[in-house]
Amino acid sequence: MYEIVAGIGTNEERAIEQADLLVGLATSGLTTSVTLLHVFEDNPEGASAHQLESVKAARDRLADHGIEVDVRESSGDPAQNIVEFARERDGDAICVAGRKRTPSGKVLFGSVTQSVLLESDQPVFVPGIGK
Amino acid sequence: MYEIVAGIGTNEERAIEQADLLVGLATSGLTTSVTLLHVFEDNPEGASAHQLESVKAARDRLADHGIEVDVRESSGDPAQNIVEFARERDGDAICVAGRKRTPSGKVLFGSVTQSVLLESDQPVFVPGIGK
Repeated sequence: MYEIVAGIGTNEERAIEQADLLVGLATSGLTTSVTLLHVFEDNPEGASAHQLESVKAARDRLADHGIEVDVRESSGDPAQNIVEFARERDGDAICVAGRKRTPSGKVLFGSVTQSVLLESDQPVFVPGIGK
Repeated sequence: MYEIVAGIGTNEERAIEQADLLVGLATSGLTTSVTLLHVFEDNPEGASAHQLESVKAARDRLADHGIEVDVRESSGDPAQNIVEFARERDGDAICVAGRKRTPSGKVLFGSVTQSVLLESDQPVFVPGIGK
C-alpha cells in the first residue's frame, strides 16, 4: 500500500487536479491509500475539513474510483503541518496543489508547494496546470 | 501503462533518488514505462546519454526492478526539452531531481525543477531529500 498525504487547500479546482493525479496513478495499478489533510491557518469557529467544498470534491472523486480515502484537519502553518504529518505517518509521498495564476495570467508557484518541496523527506507530487 | 519521463542530470546521487521514487511506485503496483531523458546543454563532441554515470545508475536501478526503461538524449535548454518531450509523447508524468545543497548546507531548489513545475502540463514528481 502506497500512502499519500494530499494537502488540500480551499481552491476546489486545484483540489480536483490533485485528485485527478492520484486517480491516474490508481487506475494504472498503484495500490494507494490517500489522506486528505486540510490545515486551517486560523480556525476560531472550529470548522471541519469535511465542510470544505475543495475537500468534498477531492474525496468524492477518489472514492468514485475506489480509492481508500481519509480526511484529517489540523491548524497552523500549512506547509509545516503537511510535512510533519507525512513524516509522522511515514507516508510514501505528499501531493500538493500546483500553480496558481495572477489576475494577469502569470503562473506563480504556491508558497505552500515551494515550502513542502524544500522541507519534505518524501517525494512530492504536483499536478500539471492542465492541458 | 503509466508513462513517466524522467529528466536526468549529471548528478548520480540525485538520479538514484529519482529512480528510487519510480521504483517505489512500481513496487506498489504502478504499471509504468520510464524514459530517462538527458539534455546536453552543450555537446560538441556528440556524447551519448548512455555514457553518463547518472543515467547508467538510474537505468540499472529501474531495470533491476523489472521496470521498462528507455534512454533518450537531446540538447538545448533542459527544462524546455523535458517539458516538450513529455508533451509530445503525451506522457502521464515528469520526474525531476529535487533539491541541491549549497556548500553551507542550505537547501536550494534546482532551476530546472522550478521551470519544469511552472511549464509542465503533466504532473511533476520530485524526490524528497532523503531521510
